[in-house]
Amino acid sequence: MDTMMRASVLTGPQRIELQERPVPEPGPDEALVRVGSVGVCGSDVHYYRHGRIGSMVVEGPLVLGHEVGGTIVAVGDAVDPARVGQRVALEPQRPCRRCRRCKTGQLNLCPDMEFFATPPVDGAFCDYVTLPADFAHPVPDSLSDAAVGLLEPLSVGIWANRKGGTAAGSRVFITGAGPIGAVAALSARAMGATDIIVSDPVESRRQRITELASAQAVDPTAGFDPSDLEADVFLECSGATPALLDGLRSLRPGGTAVMVGHGDEHISLPVQDIQVREVTLTGIFRYVDTWPVAISLAATGRVDLDALVTARFGLDEVETALTSDADPLSMKSVVVVNEGDR
Amino acid sequence: MDTMMRASVLTGPQRIELQERPVPEPGPDEALVRVGSVGVCGSDVHYYRHGRIGSMVVEGPLVLGHEVGGTIVAVGDAVDPARVGQRVALEPQRPCRRCRRCKTGQLNLCPDMEFFATPPVDGAFCDYVTLPADFAHPVPDSLSDAAVGLLEPLSVGIWANRKGGTAAGSRVFITGAGPIGAVAALSARAMGATDIIVSDPVESRRQRITELASAQAVDPTAGFDPSDLEADVFLECSGATPALLDGLRSLRPGGTAVMVGHGDEHISLPVQDIQVREVTLTGIFRYVDTWPVAISLAATGRVDLDALVTARFGLDEVETALTSDADPLSMKSVVVVNEGDR
Amino acid sequence: MDTMMRASVLTGPQRIELQERPVPEPGPDEALVRVGSVGVCGSDVHYYRHGRIGSMVVEGPLVLGHEVGGTIVAVGDAVDPARVGQRVALEPQRPCRRCRRCKTGQLNLCPDMEFFATPPVDGAFCDYVTLPADFAHPVPDSLSDAAVGLLEPLSVGIWANRKGGTAAGSRVFITGAGPIGAVAALSARAMGATDIIVSDPVESRRQRITELASAQAVDPTAGFDPSDLEADVFLECSGATPALLDGLRSLRPGGTAVMVGHGDEHISLPVQDIQVREVTLTGIFRYVDTWPVAISLAATGRVDLDALVTARFGLDEVETALTSDADPLSMKSVVVVNEGDR
Amino acid sequence: MDTMMRASVLTGPQRIELQERPVPEPGPDEALVRVGSVGVCGSDVHYYRHGRIGSMVVEGPLVLGHEVGGTIVAVGDAVDPARVGQRVALEPQRPCRRCRRCKTGQLNLCPDMEFFATPPVDGAFCDYVTLPADFAHPVPDSLSDAAVGLLEPLSVGIWANRKGGTAAGSRVFITGAGPIGAVAALSARAMGATDIIVSDPVESRRQRITELASAQAVDPTAGFDPSDLEADVFLECSGATPALLDGLRSLRPGGTAVMVGHGDEHISLPVQDIQVREVTLTGIFRYVDTWPVAISLAATGRVDLDALVTARFGLDEVETALTSDADPLSMKSVVVVNEGDR
Repeated sequence: MDTMMRASVLTGPQRIELQERPVPEPGPDEALVRVGSVGVCGSDVHYYRHGRIGSMVVEGPLVLGHEVGGTIVAVGDAVDPARVGQRVALEPQRPCRRCRRCKTGQLNLCPDMEFFATPPVDGAFCDYVTLPADFAHPVPDSLSDAAVGLLEPLSVGIWANRKGGTAAGSRVFITGAGPIGAVAALSARAMGATDIIVSDPVESRRQRITELASAQAVDPTAGFDPSDLEADVFLECSGATPALLDGLRSLRPGGTAVMVGHGDEHISLPVQDIQVREVTLTGIFRYVDTWPVAISLAATGRVDLDALVTARFGLDEVETALTSDADPLSMKSVVVVNEGDR
Repeated sequence: MDTMMRASVLTGPQRIELQERPVPEPGPDEALVRVGSVGVCGSDVHYYRHGRIGSMVVEGPLVLGHEVGGTIVAVGDAVDPARVGQRVALEPQRPCRRCRRCKTGQLNLCPDMEFFATPPVDGAFCDYVTLPADFAHPVPDSLSDAAVGLLEPLSVGIWANRKGGTAAGSRVFITGAGPIGAVAALSARAMGATDIIVSDPVESRRQRITELASAQAVDPTAGFDPSDLEADVFLECSGATPALLDGLRSLRPGGTAVMVGHGDEHISLPVQDIQVREVTLTGIFRYVDTWPVAISLAATGRVDLDALVTARFGLDEVETALTSDADPLSMKSVVVVNEGDR
Repeated sequence: MDTMMRASVLTGPQRIELQERPVPEPGPDEALVRVGSVGVCGSDVHYYRHGRIGSMVVEGPLVLGHEVGGTIVAVGDAVDPARVGQRVALEPQRPCRRCRRCKTGQLNLCPDMEFFATPPVDGAFCDYVTLPADFAHPVPDSLSDAAVGLLEPLSVGIWANRKGGTAAGSRVFITGAGPIGAVAALSARAMGATDIIVSDPVESRRQRITELASAQAVDPTAGFDPSDLEADVFLECSGATPALLDGLRSLRPGGTAVMVGHGDEHISLPVQDIQVREVTLTGIFRYVDTWPVAISLAATGRVDLDALVTARFGLDEVETALTSDADPLSMKSVVVVNEGDR
Repeated sequence: MDTMMRASVLTGPQRIELQERPVPEPGPDEALVRVGSVGVCGSDVHYYRHGRIGSMVVEGPLVLGHEVGGTIVAVGDAVDPARVGQRVALEPQRPCRRCRRCKTGQLNLCPDMEFFATPPVDGAFCDYVTLPADFAHPVPDSLSDAAVGLLEPLSVGIWANRKGGTAAGSRVFITGAGPIGAVAALSARAMGATDIIVSDPVESRRQRITELASAQAVDPTAGFDPSDLEADVFLECSGATPALLDGLRSLRPGGTAVMVGHGDEHISLPVQDIQVREVTLTGIFRYVDTWPVAISLAATGRVDLDALVTARFGLDEVETALTSDADPLSMKSVVVVNEGDR
């Protein structure tokens, strides 16, 4: 067993260094996971570029990366030793389990949550990580290493649609055809939505989402009137203020809007319209109980996660990976930390 | 049976005339109701003063008044004739019953709704009105005429709390101690809320709400910090923009905000905070299936509607009634159209 | 326009006669529909064989058939005349629209419901029927006449899964691989269920459901232990008492059982087990708001209804159609009343 | 600090011995609680009399008692030491916190639950107990020691009504006017139910429930026809088979029946009727997140728990307490283990 490992560390504004660190030890309830593949998320890019997301500020060295698949190589005393060797998808959260939120099915709102790659908690651009064993979800061999890591963004898409109430026959309007819009659309489709309309100003992205998710793509800059849509569900996945306003207008009376992308801190909203049409506006923060669903959807072929991968990098190329989104056709970059068997 | 009746008609900006009009005839499914008592609502006042509420514009003579109690004096062919003589509370809406909203329990969102005192549909400041018989709800003799009319604002309070998810043990924060804040508080209490906090800048109103609804009253202008509240439910009943912002801060993660009062058309909202705390923001527009509940609550003494009445007027005093809210201690003015037995 | 039409009438126990009857006239809110295709339902067969279903007894001549597609040929005064010529799927119910159930989204529980082919209300084995125009749902040309009729059984499958709470990733256990089990499985799949297990003692039916719905089929007579399943949802679609008991054991704690098939009036149930595992048991009676969903699922190819059709008959062959289920491989017989264009 | 303590132990069939045992040590996340008052529950009586409840069998010495109030006297390292001295109500469960049920708000269905006084886990008829500190809920001084213990049965009543969907204006039918029927009625009332009908064959119990919970009491043996009730919610609190059947008939279409009392393992139920009226049948097993609500209801005077206490015993009188229910007017016996200040 290794005692030292590689870690790709954000050590300052837009500065990533590959360092040597001790391999962590799993606590009694934890698993030690050798990292296989880690997807690059927009939040990783944001911390790299700006050193903060809202009130969450990077104040010391930080390992980024939280879309993780790997293999259990050791477990704590309270964990079934037969789990060693298991391929797992990591649900990168560590809630307190004791507060009222944790005990009522809202662990994502736990005030004492520790979450991968959210300062000061390290993430997974490194060889080994530990996490509570119940948050390391076994995956079937049919899923590729990259797909296992991308169960995390798929979870975001599932949670967004759950909050929106997407059901069989729903009409779902999505703004933004980037990676989050894509997992939102794929999840909507998997939940039975029969009309999925995605808006994005970039033509190449519109074309791609049409292929990926059998969605209809529209150009919000070309005279598109969202108020004709009468959508049941609206998922804002772009972070753009005009997109949020478009989406609110797209909803039928009684429809639900969910903010998934991150944008301006304050936005002037048409509150009277929200009120008299009894529209519901909410947002999502992480997820609860999505991995079992995400794994089932991917394992049965309902959702093809490999199709999202547009570039692969090594652990020594994390900085390049973090800047790879400059290409508008970049969907999902993946850092292959350790080659697996698949 | 009378063939002509009195009607108090809004004939122009801030001009009310008492006119003679023919008594309406009930359709096959309708009841003809002799009006007993009609509460004055803020929307009546608004139409009187400004001639419009948002996109709803008064363009011809309009009878105001939609908080109505009365007695059935005739019925159409398809209605049980035994209902003649029944004291009833009027649910002042006439949905199409055929659209998808009507058939799925959301009749308040029917696009073809005709609603009392909403242009161009006349209301009830007159001797007789017709409405579908199933929207004329029988009431027990124990309720006073005034109370019967005030089942309508109570319905608003019930619907607001239903949307908010108020339950036994809930902490409910309400902004505004006027009539809508009062019915919201009374409804919250009837649903089992154990902490009801009402904010209002006027001391006399704070004092009154404390007595009426066993609520705790706070002064929003006196250093009150709503973010300490960790409320489950927030009901905005003032129409004031700062109150909406206060209320959003008052909520615990996962809490629900409901806009009940009417204020600015657009408001700059802290959308990032709404998102990362998974707060839900919605509003109410009228109500669905609230009369049976309102009648039960009033009839069993859980809610005392008579205590809300601060002034009474005759049908020839509607204009005075509509301006009676100048007094900050005015809660609910009632127009007694025809004296009943109670 | 025809004034007389053909009607296939149940005139006595197991006696069907083709009669001439006047073409009905649409009421103001109604459509007159020329019947295209009518599926044969188990309840039709039951009335034909036994003259009753529970407390619903055939006491006079009755036209059977309620799985209906057709074309609007005339409309009442209150209906948009542009609808004439529209191909429609018929939702064969006529609720009162005025009771508390109708106004709260539970119109299927309306005590005054009139339902096609439920005594004494005639059904659709005839050339023309009338129904409220809002229950005649427009369908796209891409759907065959037979498929349009089979939106009714698909609605049963959708409603069953809604009651069961089927969602993306659900494990659904279904007992019975006949037509109802098939639509239940197809609906579950369309709603995102990733594990669908269907039990049936007949091997040929197991094989067929595997192909139709990508379900896993099991033989309940061959040592199958349902308690290993830990299903989220159980849909009883066979009417067999042992199947209901199997299904209750198949559920995980907190799971939901829905009775869809009709069987014994009383059954001895393991109530302590239901209680301590907080299992929910309910059943379905018709449906609410399922046609829009069913049409979307069929029109987008999520559900292939044509694949269910195993035999076609003319209107003069209704009796043969009603007995065609003797063949265990009969899935859905269809009576083609009037040839359409598709 | 004491090192030894008294414990009242069930050592064999209907044999209780007062023994000396070591005071337990709190684990890192635990509190050590000096027991004040413990209510006697029907399940305690059942274990005492029959040595088992269903599959749960007493196989060694067992301390009974799980309705517990007390005072924290020591805490583990991970617990705020300021909690020492706090008066607390004990939520007597210890879920695994790691399974899918625990993480989705259904911890009561955790397969690895350890629950007070359920073999082989000891309860609280003793001087000291330990439990996870987050399950020791602080209570205000206004609640008596006895009331603090009775928050546990109140929790049962709250959970039963939550499962039943009791809301403002609900009509709730309850069978059985014993302690469980009483907390069910008190909870229903606190949640806004306006019609509460309780059936019990014993007149003195009917009279008492009328006073305690402002309920209407009926005699099920005196020609009472439950099918007239059209109840929204039915709570079976007697364990009697005829009561369950009565209750199912009492429900309106779409109503919900909840089994709260424990009775026969199998019961022949009218499944066709359940199905065609879309009635929902379920049961309750313990509770989730009820203490905060129970404490609020008791502390604000919405529910008076002291009124339920009909007898008090010392720790050396547990056996007498366990047989005190022979008196039909016994409602709730309480064992005062250590006198508190209230």
